[in-house]
Amino acid sequence: MLPLHNSNIHITIPKMGCWFFILMLTITTAVASPIKNQIHLLRPHSGSAGHKHSDINCLSWRLAVETDNLQDWTLVPQACKDYVGHYMLGKQYRDDCDFVAAEAYKYAKGLNLTKDGKDIWVFDIDETTLSNIPYYALDNVAFGSIPYNATSFDKWTAKAVAPAIPGSLKLYKQLIKLGFKIVFLTGTREKFKEPRIKNLKGVGYTQWEKLILKGDNDHGNGVEYKSSKRKELVEGGYRIRGNMGDQWSDLLGSNPGDRTFKVPDPMYYIA
Amino acid sequence: MLPLHNSNIHITIPKMGCWFFILMLTITTAVASPIKNQIHLLRPHSGSAGHKHSDINCLSWRLAVETDNLQDWTLVPQACKDYVGHYMLGKQYRDDCDFVAAEAYKYAKGLNLTKDGKDIWVFDIDETTLSNIPYYALDNVAFGSIPYNATSFDKWTAKAVAPAIPGSLKLYKQLIKLGFKIVFLTGTREKFKEPRIKNLKGVGYTQWEKLILKGDNDHGNGVEYKSSKRKELVEGGYRIRGNMGDQWSDLLGSNPGDRTFKVPDPMYYIA
Repeated sequence: MLPLHNSNIHITIPKMGCWFFILMLTITTAVASPIKNQIHLLRPHSGSAGHKHSDINCLSWRLAVETDNLQDWTLVPQACKDYVGHYMLGKQYRDDCDFVAAEAYKYAKGLNLTKDGKDIWVFDIDETTLSNIPYYALDNVAFGSIPYNATSFDKWTAKAVAPAIPGSLKLYKQLIKLGFKIVFLTGTREKFKEPRIKNLKGVGYTQWEKLILKGDNDHGNGVEYKSSKRKELVEGGYRIRGNMGDQWSDLLGSNPGDRTFKVPDPMYYIA
Repeated sequence: MLPLHNSNIHITIPKMGCWFFILMLTITTAVASPIKNQIHLLRPHSGSAGHKHSDINCLSWRLAVETDNLQDWTLVPQACKDYVGHYMLGKQYRDDCDFVAAEAYKYAKGLNLTKDGKDIWVFDIDETTLSNIPYYALDNVAFGSIPYNATSFDKWTAKAVAPAIPGSLKLYKQLIKLGFKIVFLTGTREKFKEPRIKNLKGVGYTQWEKLILKGDNDHGNGVEYKSSKRKELVEGGYRIRGNMGDQWSDLLGSNPGDRTFKVPDPMYYIA
Protein backbone atom coordinates (compact mmCIF):
# COMPACT_ATOMS: atom_id res chain seq x y z
CA MET A 1 0.00 0.00 0.00
CA LEU A 2 1.26 3.48 -0.76
CA PRO A 3 1.80 5.74 2.19
CA LEU A 4 -1.04 8.13 2.85
CA HIS A 5 0.89 11.26 1.97
CA ASN A 6 1.15 10.29 -1.67
CA SER A 7 -2.48 11.17 -2.13
CA ASN A 8 -1.39 14.78 -1.73
CA ILE A 9 1.35 14.87 -4.35
CA HIS A 10 1.48 18.08 -6.36
CA ILE A 11 0.95 17.41 -10.04
CA THR A 12 0.87 20.99 -11.21
CA ILE A 13 4.30 20.95 -12.83
CA PRO A 14 3.88 20.16 -16.52
CA LYS A 15 5.93 17.56 -18.39
CA MET A 16 8.95 17.11 -16.09
CA GLY A 17 6.73 17.20 -13.09
CA CYS A 18 4.71 14.34 -14.48
CA TRP A 19 7.77 12.25 -15.14
CA PHE A 20 9.16 13.09 -11.74
CA PHE A 21 5.83 12.16 -10.22
CA ILE A 22 5.70 8.80 -11.95
CA LEU A 23 9.32 8.12 -11.06
CA MET A 24 8.76 9.01 -7.43
CA LEU A 25 5.67 6.83 -7.35
CA THR A 26 7.69 3.93 -8.71
CA ILE A 27 10.46 4.46 -6.20
CA THR A 28 8.02 4.89 -3.35
CA THR A 29 6.32 1.67 -4.27
CA ALA A 30 9.64 -0.11 -4.59
CA VAL A 31 10.90 1.24 -1.31
CA ALA A 32 7.69 0.88 0.65
CA SER A 33 7.26 -2.73 -0.39
CA PRO A 34 8.44 -5.71 1.61
CA ILE A 35 10.40 -4.48 4.57
CA LYS A 36 13.62 -2.64 3.76
CA ASN A 37 13.51 1.14 4.06
CA GLN A 38 9.88 1.29 4.92
CA ILE A 39 8.77 4.83 5.25
CA HIS A 40 6.35 6.38 7.67
CA LEU A 41 4.56 9.63 8.19
CA LEU A 42 6.75 12.67 8.59
CA ARG A 43 6.89 13.10 12.33
CA PRO A 44 9.23 12.39 15.18
CA HIS A 45 8.86 9.15 17.08
CA SER A 46 6.80 11.07 19.52
CA GLY A 47 4.77 8.45 21.21
CA SER A 48 1.34 9.68 20.31
CA ALA A 49 0.86 6.93 17.75
CA GLY A 50 2.59 4.30 19.84
CA HIS A 51 5.97 4.67 18.16
CA LYS A 52 9.00 4.12 20.28
CA HIS A 53 11.05 7.10 21.25
CA SER A 54 14.44 7.33 19.65
CA ASP A 55 17.34 9.03 21.40
CA ILE A 56 17.58 11.42 18.51
CA ASN A 57 14.90 13.84 17.37
CA CYS A 58 15.22 13.51 13.60
CA LEU A 59 13.54 16.85 12.93
CA SER A 60 16.12 18.53 15.16
CA TRP A 61 18.87 16.58 13.45
CA ARG A 62 17.68 17.68 10.01
CA LEU A 63 17.28 21.32 11.07
CA ALA A 64 20.83 21.25 12.45
CA VAL A 65 22.05 19.88 9.11
CA GLU A 66 20.21 22.51 7.09
CA THR A 67 21.41 25.40 9.24
CA ASP A 68 25.02 24.15 9.18
CA ASN A 69 25.00 23.70 12.96
CA LEU A 70 25.91 20.07 12.42
CA GLN A 71 29.10 19.75 10.39
CA ASP A 72 31.39 17.00 9.12
CA TRP A 73 28.86 14.24 9.62
CA THR A 74 29.39 11.11 7.61
CA LEU A 75 26.16 9.13 7.83
CA VAL A 76 22.47 9.69 8.36
CA PRO A 77 21.88 8.30 11.88
CA GLN A 78 20.32 4.83 11.78
CA ALA A 79 17.41 6.14 13.83
CA CYS A 80 16.68 8.73 11.13
CA LYS A 81 17.01 6.51 8.06
CA ASP A 82 13.26 6.04 7.67
CA TYR A 83 12.57 9.64 8.56
CA VAL A 84 14.97 10.91 5.89
CA GLY A 85 13.58 8.41 3.39
CA HIS A 86 10.08 9.55 3.99
CA TYR A 87 11.08 13.20 3.83
CA MET A 88 12.90 12.78 0.53
CA LEU A 89 10.09 10.82 -1.10
CA GLY A 90 7.27 12.83 0.36
CA LYS A 91 5.55 16.11 -0.29
CA GLN A 92 7.55 18.11 2.26
CA TYR A 93 10.88 17.86 0.45
CA ARG A 94 9.26 18.96 -2.80
CA ASP A 95 7.51 21.83 -1.04
CA ASP A 96 10.76 22.88 0.64
CA CYS A 97 12.57 22.91 -2.72
CA ASP A 98 9.71 24.82 -4.33
CA PHE A 99 9.75 27.41 -1.56
CA VAL A 100 13.46 28.10 -1.95
CA ALA A 101 13.13 28.33 -5.72
CA ALA A 102 10.20 30.74 -5.38
CA GLU A 103 12.20 32.96 -2.99
CA ALA A 104 15.15 32.88 -5.38
CA TYR A 105 12.89 33.98 -8.23
CA LYS A 106 11.43 36.84 -6.16
CA TYR A 107 14.96 38.04 -5.50
CA ALA A 108 16.14 37.53 -9.07
CA LYS A 109 13.30 39.41 -10.72
CA GLY A 110 13.98 42.40 -8.48
CA LEU A 111 17.52 42.74 -9.80
CA ASN A 112 18.56 45.19 -12.44
CA LEU A 113 20.45 43.18 -15.03
CA THR A 114 23.00 44.83 -17.25
CA LYS A 115 22.17 42.63 -20.23
CA ASP A 116 25.84 42.42 -21.18
CA GLY A 117 25.73 38.67 -20.64
CA LYS A 118 27.83 38.85 -17.48
CA ASP A 119 25.07 38.47 -14.90
CA ILE A 120 25.24 34.84 -13.92
CA TRP A 121 23.45 32.44 -11.65
CA VAL A 122 25.54 29.59 -10.30
CA PHE A 123 23.83 26.27 -9.76
CA ASP A 124 25.33 23.22 -8.16
CA ILE A 125 24.13 20.02 -9.84
CA ASP A 126 23.57 17.04 -7.51
CA GLU A 127 20.59 17.56 -5.20
CA THR A 128 20.32 21.11 -6.52
CA THR A 129 19.35 20.82 -10.17
CA LEU A 130 19.36 17.04 -10.58
CA SER A 131 18.06 14.61 -7.99
CA ASN A 132 19.81 11.39 -7.01
CA ILE A 133 16.80 10.12 -5.08
CA PRO A 134 16.43 7.05 -7.32
CA TYR A 135 19.96 6.07 -6.31
CA TYR A 136 19.69 7.05 -2.66
CA ALA A 137 16.48 5.07 -2.28
CA LEU A 138 18.29 1.82 -3.13
CA ASP A 139 18.49 -0.72 -0.32
CA ASN A 140 22.28 -0.59 -0.24
CA VAL A 141 22.33 3.20 -0.02
CA ALA A 142 19.33 3.67 2.28
CA PHE A 143 19.13 7.45 2.00
CA GLY A 144 22.70 7.98 3.16
CA SER A 145 22.55 5.78 6.24
CA ILE A 146 25.04 3.30 4.73
CA PRO A 147 28.67 4.33 3.97
CA TYR A 148 29.18 6.02 0.61
CA ASN A 149 30.27 3.73 -2.22
CA ALA A 150 32.09 5.79 -4.85
CA THR A 151 32.16 3.02 -7.48
CA SER A 152 28.47 2.43 -7.25
CA PHE A 153 27.63 6.15 -7.27
CA ASP A 154 29.89 6.71 -10.28
CA LYS A 155 28.01 4.00 -12.17
CA TRP A 156 24.75 5.74 -11.37
CA THR A 157 26.14 9.11 -12.53
CA ALA A 158 27.29 7.52 -15.78
CA LYS A 159 23.74 6.36 -16.50
CA ALA A 160 22.69 10.01 -16.80
CA VAL A 161 19.14 9.31 -15.69
CA ALA A 162 18.82 11.59 -12.65
CA PRO A 163 15.51 13.47 -12.75
CA ALA A 164 15.34 17.24 -12.45
CA ILE A 165 14.31 18.84 -9.18
CA PRO A 166 11.09 20.46 -10.39
CA GLY A 167 11.42 23.72 -8.41
CA SER A 168 14.98 24.27 -9.61
CA LEU A 169 14.09 23.51 -13.23
CA LYS A 170 11.28 26.03 -13.08
CA LEU A 171 13.64 28.61 -11.55
CA TYR A 172 16.27 27.87 -14.21
CA LYS A 173 13.77 28.62 -16.96
CA GLN A 174 12.59 31.77 -15.21
CA LEU A 175 16.17 33.00 -14.77
CA ILE A 176 16.93 32.53 -18.46
CA LYS A 177 13.81 34.51 -19.34
CA LEU A 178 14.99 37.29 -17.02
CA GLY A 179 18.30 37.42 -18.89
CA PHE A 180 20.64 35.53 -16.58
CA LYS A 181 23.39 33.33 -17.90
CA ILE A 182 23.56 29.99 -16.18
CA VAL A 183 26.72 28.41 -14.80
CA PHE A 184 26.65 24.85 -13.51
CA LEU A 185 29.44 24.29 -11.01
CA THR A 186 29.75 20.71 -9.81
CA GLY A 187 32.14 18.54 -7.86
CA THR A 188 31.57 15.80 -10.43
CA ARG A 189 34.81 14.75 -12.12
CA GLU A 190 35.59 15.89 -15.66
CA LYS A 191 35.45 12.31 -16.98
CA PHE A 192 31.68 12.35 -16.47
CA LYS A 193 31.23 15.42 -18.66
CA GLU A 194 29.32 13.67 -21.41
CA PRO A 195 26.79 11.85 -19.20
CA ARG A 196 26.27 15.04 -17.22
CA ILE A 197 25.51 16.99 -20.39
CA LYS A 198 23.20 14.23 -21.58
CA ASN A 199 21.45 14.14 -18.20
CA LEU A 200 21.01 17.89 -17.90
CA LYS A 201 19.70 18.26 -21.45
CA GLY A 202 17.54 15.19 -21.13
CA VAL A 203 15.52 16.64 -18.28
CA GLY A 204 15.20 20.19 -19.54
CA TYR A 205 18.37 22.12 -18.65
CA THR A 206 19.06 22.73 -22.29
CA GLN A 207 21.44 25.70 -22.27
CA TRP A 208 24.20 27.23 -20.16
CA GLU A 209 27.09 29.65 -20.25
CA LYS A 210 29.50 27.26 -18.56
CA LEU A 211 29.48 23.76 -17.17
CA ILE A 212 32.37 23.48 -14.72
CA LEU A 213 33.45 20.02 -13.60
CA LYS A 214 36.29 19.04 -11.30
CA GLY A 215 39.50 18.48 -13.24
CA ASP A 216 42.47 16.33 -12.30
CA ASN A 217 44.30 19.46 -11.21
CA ASP A 218 41.53 20.65 -8.95
CA HIS A 219 42.31 19.87 -5.36
CA GLY A 220 41.04 20.84 -1.96
CA ASN A 221 37.70 20.38 -0.29
CA GLY A 222 34.37 21.61 -1.57
CA VAL A 223 34.72 25.14 -0.24
CA GLU A 224 38.22 25.53 -1.71
CA TYR A 225 37.37 24.02 -5.08
CA LYS A 226 34.17 25.99 -5.57
CA SER A 227 35.72 29.22 -4.28
CA SER A 228 38.58 28.90 -6.76
CA LYS A 229 36.19 28.34 -9.66
CA ARG A 230 34.02 31.27 -8.61
CA LYS A 231 37.15 33.42 -8.38
CA GLU A 232 37.96 32.51 -12.00
CA LEU A 233 34.44 33.48 -13.00
CA VAL A 234 34.68 36.87 -11.28
CA GLU A 235 38.12 37.45 -12.77
CA GLY A 236 36.55 36.67 -16.13
CA GLY A 237 34.21 39.62 -15.64
CA TYR A 238 31.14 37.72 -14.53
CA ARG A 239 28.89 38.97 -11.77
CA ILE A 240 27.57 36.16 -9.59
CA ARG A 241 24.13 37.54 -8.76
CA GLY A 242 22.85 34.30 -7.26
CA ASN A 243 24.32 31.01 -6.12
CA MET A 244 22.30 27.94 -5.26
CA GLY A 245 23.43 24.68 -3.75
CA ASP A 246 22.41 21.87 -1.43
CA GLN A 247 25.67 21.98 0.56
CA TRP A 248 26.94 24.88 2.65
CA SER A 249 30.29 24.23 0.96
CA ASP A 250 28.62 25.42 -2.27
CA LEU A 251 27.77 28.73 -0.62
CA LEU A 252 30.63 29.59 1.73
CA GLY A 253 34.16 30.76 0.97
CA SER A 254 35.21 33.57 -1.34
CA ASN A 255 33.03 35.15 -4.02
CA PRO A 256 29.91 33.36 -2.77
CA GLY A 257 27.65 35.51 -4.93
CA ASP A 258 25.41 38.47 -4.11
CA ARG A 259 22.95 36.11 -2.50
CA THR A 260 23.03 32.41 -1.80
CA PHE A 261 20.23 29.88 -1.57
CA LYS A 262 20.41 26.60 0.30
CA VAL A 263 18.23 23.79 -0.99
CA PRO A 264 17.58 20.88 1.37
CA ASP A 265 19.74 17.78 1.51
CA PRO A 266 19.69 15.61 4.61
CA MET A 267 21.34 12.64 2.82
CA TYR A 268 25.02 13.57 2.80
CA TYR A 269 27.55 16.19 3.82
CA ILE A 270 30.35 17.59 1.68
CA ALA A 271 32.94 19.66 3.53
CA MET B 1 -7.61 20.60 27.14
CA LEU B 2 -3.88 20.62 26.65
CA PRO B 3 -2.62 19.55 23.27
CA LEU B 4 -1.47 15.97 23.05
CA HIS B 5 2.21 16.77 22.60
CA ASN B 6 2.55 18.19 26.09
CA SER B 7 2.45 14.69 27.46
CA ASN B 8 5.92 14.29 25.96
CA ILE B 9 7.60 17.33 27.49
CA HIS B 10 11.18 16.74 28.57
CA ILE B 11 11.56 17.36 32.26
CA THR B 12 15.16 16.30 32.58
CA ILE B 13 16.58 19.79 33.00
CA PRO B 14 16.96 20.52 36.69
CA LYS B 15 15.76 23.69 38.38
CA MET B 16 15.51 26.15 35.49
CA GLY B 17 14.05 23.45 33.30
CA CYS B 18 11.32 22.86 35.84
CA TRP B 19 10.50 26.53 36.05
CA PHE B 20 10.58 26.82 32.29
CA PHE B 21 8.33 23.80 32.06
CA ILE B 22 5.77 25.20 34.49
CA LEU B 23 5.89 28.57 32.75
CA MET B 24 5.43 26.98 29.35
CA LEU B 25 2.56 24.90 30.65
CA THR B 26 0.90 28.04 31.98
CA ILE B 27 1.37 29.84 28.72
CA THR B 28 0.21 26.87 26.72
CA THR B 29 -2.92 26.64 28.79
CA ALA B 30 -3.52 30.36 28.55
CA VAL B 31 -2.96 30.39 24.81
CA ALA B 32 -4.84 27.23 24.04
CA SER B 33 -7.87 28.38 25.97
CA PRO B 34 -10.87 30.11 24.50
CA ILE B 35 -10.21 30.90 20.87
CA LYS B 36 -7.37 33.34 20.25
CA ASN B 37 -4.08 31.79 19.15
CA GLN B 38 -5.30 28.26 19.43
CA ILE B 39 -2.55 25.86 18.67
CA HIS B 40 -2.64 22.56 16.88
CA LEU B 41 -0.40 19.62 16.27
CA LEU B 42 2.89 20.31 14.53
CA ARG B 43 2.18 19.37 10.96
CA PRO B 44 1.30 21.05 7.71
CA HIS B 45 -2.34 21.44 6.75
CA SER B 46 -1.90 18.40 4.63
CA GLY B 47 -5.34 17.06 4.19
CA SER B 48 -4.86 13.66 5.77
CA ALA B 49 -6.64 14.70 8.94
CA GLY B 50 -9.25 16.72 7.14
CA HIS B 51 -7.49 20.04 7.61
CA LYS B 52 -7.86 22.59 4.91
CA HIS B 53 -4.87 23.30 2.73
CA SER B 54 -3.23 26.64 3.19
CA ASP B 55 -1.45 28.34 0.31
CA ILE B 56 1.72 28.31 2.34
CA ASN B 57 3.49 25.26 3.70
CA CYS B 58 4.51 26.52 7.14
CA LEU B 59 7.25 23.92 7.53
CA SER B 60 8.79 25.12 4.28
CA TRP B 61 8.38 28.70 5.40
CA ARG B 62 10.14 28.00 8.69
CA LEU B 63 12.96 26.06 7.02
CA ALA B 64 13.48 28.96 4.62
CA VAL B 65 13.68 31.32 7.60
CA GLU B 66 16.16 29.15 9.47
CA THR B 67 18.43 28.68 6.45
CA ASP B 68 18.36 32.41 5.62
CA ASN B 69 16.73 31.70 2.27
CA LEU B 70 13.88 33.98 3.28
CA GLN B 71 15.18 37.42 4.19
CA ASP B 72 13.78 40.80 5.22
CA TRP B 73 10.40 39.44 6.20
CA THR B 74 8.37 41.54 8.59
CA LEU B 75 5.60 39.30 9.87
CA VAL B 76 4.87 35.65 10.44
CA PRO B 77 2.30 34.83 7.73
CA GLN B 78 -1.25 34.76 9.09
CA ALA B 79 -1.57 31.19 7.85
CA CYS B 80 1.43 30.18 9.99
CA LYS B 81 0.52 32.00 13.20
CA ASP B 82 -0.89 28.89 14.88
CA TYR B 83 1.88 26.72 13.50
CA VAL B 84 4.60 29.02 14.88
CA GLY B 85 2.75 29.26 18.19
CA HIS B 86 2.57 25.54 18.49
CA TYR B 87 6.19 25.13 17.51
CA MET B 88 7.43 27.66 20.05
CA LEU B 89 5.36 26.24 22.90
CA GLY B 90 5.89 22.61 22.01
CA LYS B 91 8.56 20.00 22.42
CA GLN B 92 10.11 20.48 18.99
CA TYR B 93 11.43 23.98 19.64
CA ARG B 94 13.00 22.87 22.91
CA ASP B 95 14.52 19.83 21.21
CA ASP B 96 15.86 21.98 18.37
CA CYS B 97 17.48 24.36 20.87
CA ASP B 98 18.91 21.45 22.86
CA PHE B 99 20.36 19.88 19.71
CA VAL B 100 22.18 23.07 18.70
CA ALA B 101 23.53 23.54 22.22
CA ALA B 102 24.73 19.93 22.30
CA GLU B 103 26.54 20.36 18.98
CA ALA B 104 28.09 23.58 20.21
CA TYR B 105 29.35 21.80 23.31
CA LYS B 106 30.82 18.95 21.24
CA TYR B 107 32.72 21.53 19.22
CA ALA B 108 33.76 23.59 22.24
CA LYS B 109 35.16 20.71 24.24
CA GLY B 110 37.34 19.72 21.28
CA LEU B 111 39.08 23.08 21.27
CA ASN B 112 42.45 23.70 22.81
CA LEU B 113 42.03 26.74 25.03
CA THR B 114 44.98 28.94 25.84
CA LYS B 115 43.70 29.70 29.34
CA ASP B 116 44.89 33.31 29.07
CA GLY B 117 41.30 34.45 29.44
CA LYS B 118 41.06 35.56 25.85
CA ASP B 119 39.08 32.63 24.46
CA ILE B 120 35.54 33.90 24.33
CA TRP B 121 32.12 32.65 23.39
CA VAL B 122 29.73 35.28 22.10
CA PHE B 123 26.07 34.85 22.91
CA ASP B 124 23.23 36.98 21.63
CA ILE B 125 20.55 37.47 24.31
CA ASP B 126 16.95 37.53 23.02
CA GLU B 127 15.80 34.14 21.76
CA THR B 128 19.36 32.87 22.24
CA THR B 129 19.99 32.94 25.99
CA LEU B 130 16.72 34.46 27.21
CA SER B 131 13.31 33.58 25.81
CA ASN B 132 10.61 36.13 25.05
CA ILE B 133 7.96 33.46 24.53
CA PRO B 134 5.82 34.77 27.42
CA TYR B 135 5.65 38.08 25.57
CA TYR B 136 5.27 36.64 22.08
CA ALA B 137 2.42 34.40 23.21
CA LEU B 138 0.29 37.42 24.13
CA ASP B 139 -2.85 37.91 22.06
CA ASN B 140 -1.67 41.25 20.74
CA VAL B 141 1.69 39.85 19.66
CA ALA B 142 0.51 36.46 18.43
CA PHE B 143 3.94 34.92 17.87
CA GLY B 144 5.07 37.67 15.55
CA SER B 145 2.05 37.66 13.25
CA ILE B 146 1.03 41.16 14.42
CA PRO B 147 3.25 44.20 13.70
CA TYR B 148 6.01 44.82 16.24
CA ASN B 149 5.19 47.31 18.98
CA ALA B 150 8.43 48.77 20.34
CA THR B 151 6.80 50.47 23.35
CA SER B 152 5.11 47.31 24.46
CA PHE B 153 8.23 45.17 23.92
CA ASP B 154 10.36 47.69 25.83
CA LYS B 155 7.99 47.45 28.78
CA TRP B 156 8.37 43.67 28.72
CA THR B 157 12.17 43.94 28.57
CA ALA B 158 12.13 46.31 31.53
CA LYS B 159 10.27 43.73 33.61
CA ALA B 160 13.36 41.48 33.41
CA VAL B 161 11.35 38.30 33.71
CA ALA B 162 12.33 36.45 30.51
CA PRO B 163 13.10 32.79 31.25
CA ALA B 164 16.36 31.18 30.18
CA ILE B 165 16.44 28.92 27.15
CA PRO B 166 17.35 25.69 28.94
CA GLY B 167 19.74 24.33 26.29
CA SER B 168 21.66 27.60 26.12
CA LEU B 169 21.89 27.92 29.88
CA LYS B 170 23.29 24.42 30.09
CA LEU B 171 25.81 25.23 27.35
CA TYR B 172 26.76 28.49 29.10
CA LYS B 173 27.61 26.59 32.28
CA GLN B 174 29.54 23.95 30.32
CA LEU B 175 31.55 26.61 28.49
CA ILE B 176 32.53 28.31 31.73
CA LYS B 177 33.69 24.97 33.11
CA LEU B 178 35.80 24.47 29.98
CA GLY B 179 37.47 27.83 30.57
CA PHE B 180 35.70 30.12 28.11
CA LYS B 181 34.95 33.70 28.94
CA ILE B 182 31.42 34.70 28.06
CA VAL B 183 30.46 37.80 26.11
CA PHE B 184 26.83 38.77 25.75
CA LEU B 185 26.30 40.93 22.68
CA THR B 186 22.78 42.25 22.27
CA GLY B 187 20.87 44.76 20.19
CA THR B 188 19.09 45.87 23.34
CA ARG B 189 19.62 49.55 24.08
CA GLU B 190 22.01 50.65 26.82
CA LYS B 191 19.18 52.14 28.88
CA PHE B 192 17.97 48.63 29.64
CA LYS B 193 21.30 47.60 31.10
CA GLU B 194 20.07 47.16 34.66
CA PRO B 195 16.99 45.05 33.87
CA ARG B 196 19.08 42.92 31.51
CA ILE B 197 21.65 42.25 34.21
CA LYS B 198 18.87 41.47 36.67
CA ASN B 199 17.18 39.16 34.17
CA LEU B 200 20.35 37.30 33.19
CA LYS B 201 21.45 36.80 36.80
CA GLY B 202 17.95 35.91 37.89
CA VAL B 203 17.75 32.90 35.59
CA GLY B 204 21.27 31.58 36.07
CA TYR B 205 23.63 33.50 33.78
CA THR B 206 25.57 34.74 36.77
CA GLN B 207 28.92 35.79 35.29
CA TRP B 208 30.39 37.22 32.12
CA GLU B 209 33.45 38.95 30.72
CA LYS B 210 31.43 41.61 28.91
CA LEU B 211 27.82 42.58 28.43
CA ILE B 212 27.63 44.72 25.31
CA LEU B 213 24.45 46.71 24.71
CA LYS B 214 23.65 49.10 21.89
CA GLY B 215 24.69 52.63 22.74
CA ASP B 216 23.32 55.89 21.39
CA ASN B 217 26.32 56.14 19.09
CA ASP B 218 25.86 52.69 17.66
CA HIS B 219 24.21 52.84 14.28
CA GLY B 220 23.63 50.56 11.34
CA ASN B 221 21.68 47.36 11.02
CA GLY B 222 22.25 44.21 13.02
CA VAL B 223 25.09 42.91 10.88
CA GLU B 224 26.93 46.23 10.99
CA TYR B 225 26.42 46.81 14.71
CA LYS B 226 27.43 43.31 15.75
CA SER B 227 30.38 43.23 13.34
CA SER B 228 31.73 46.48 14.75
CA LYS B 229 31.47 45.19 18.32
CA ARG B 230 33.14 41.91 17.41
CA LYS B 231 35.89 43.88 15.69
CA GLU B 232 36.49 45.77 18.94
CA LEU B 233 36.68 42.47 20.78
CA VAL B 234 39.22 41.04 18.37
CA GLU B 235 41.23 44.27 18.48
CA GLY B 236 41.17 43.92 22.24
CA GLY B 237 42.98 40.60 21.91
CA TYR B 238 40.02 38.29 22.31
CA ARG B 239 39.62 35.17 20.22
CA ILE B 240 35.99 34.50 19.29
CA ARG B 241 35.95 30.73 19.35
CA GLY B 242 32.19 30.42 19.11
CA ASN B 243 29.28 32.71 18.33
CA MET B 244 25.67 31.82 18.90
CA GLY B 245 22.56 33.72 17.88
CA ASP B 246 19.00 33.31 16.72
CA GLN B 247 19.40 35.75 13.81
CA TRP B 248 21.68 35.34 10.83
CA SER B 249 22.61 38.99 11.43
CA ASP B 250 24.25 37.77 14.66
CA LEU B 251 26.45 35.41 12.68
CA LEU B 252 27.28 37.13 9.40
CA GLY B 253 29.60 40.05 8.69
CA SER B 254 33.19 40.47 9.83
CA ASN B 255 34.86 38.53 12.65
CA PRO B 256 31.94 36.11 12.91
CA GLY B 257 33.93 33.77 15.14
CA ASP B 258 35.66 30.46 14.46
CA ARG B 259 32.32 28.75 14.32
CA THR B 260 28.77 30.04 14.46
CA PHE B 261 25.62 28.40 15.75
CA LYS B 262 22.11 29.36 14.69
CA VAL B 263 19.37 28.74 17.23
CA PRO B 264 15.80 28.69 15.94
CA ASP B 265 13.59 31.74 15.82
CA PRO B 266 10.62 31.80 13.47
CA MET B 267 8.98 34.80 15.23
CA TYR B 268 10.89 37.77 13.86
CA TYR B 269 13.66 38.83 11.52
CA ILE B 270 16.42 41.34 12.26
CA ALA B 271 18.43 42.50 9.26
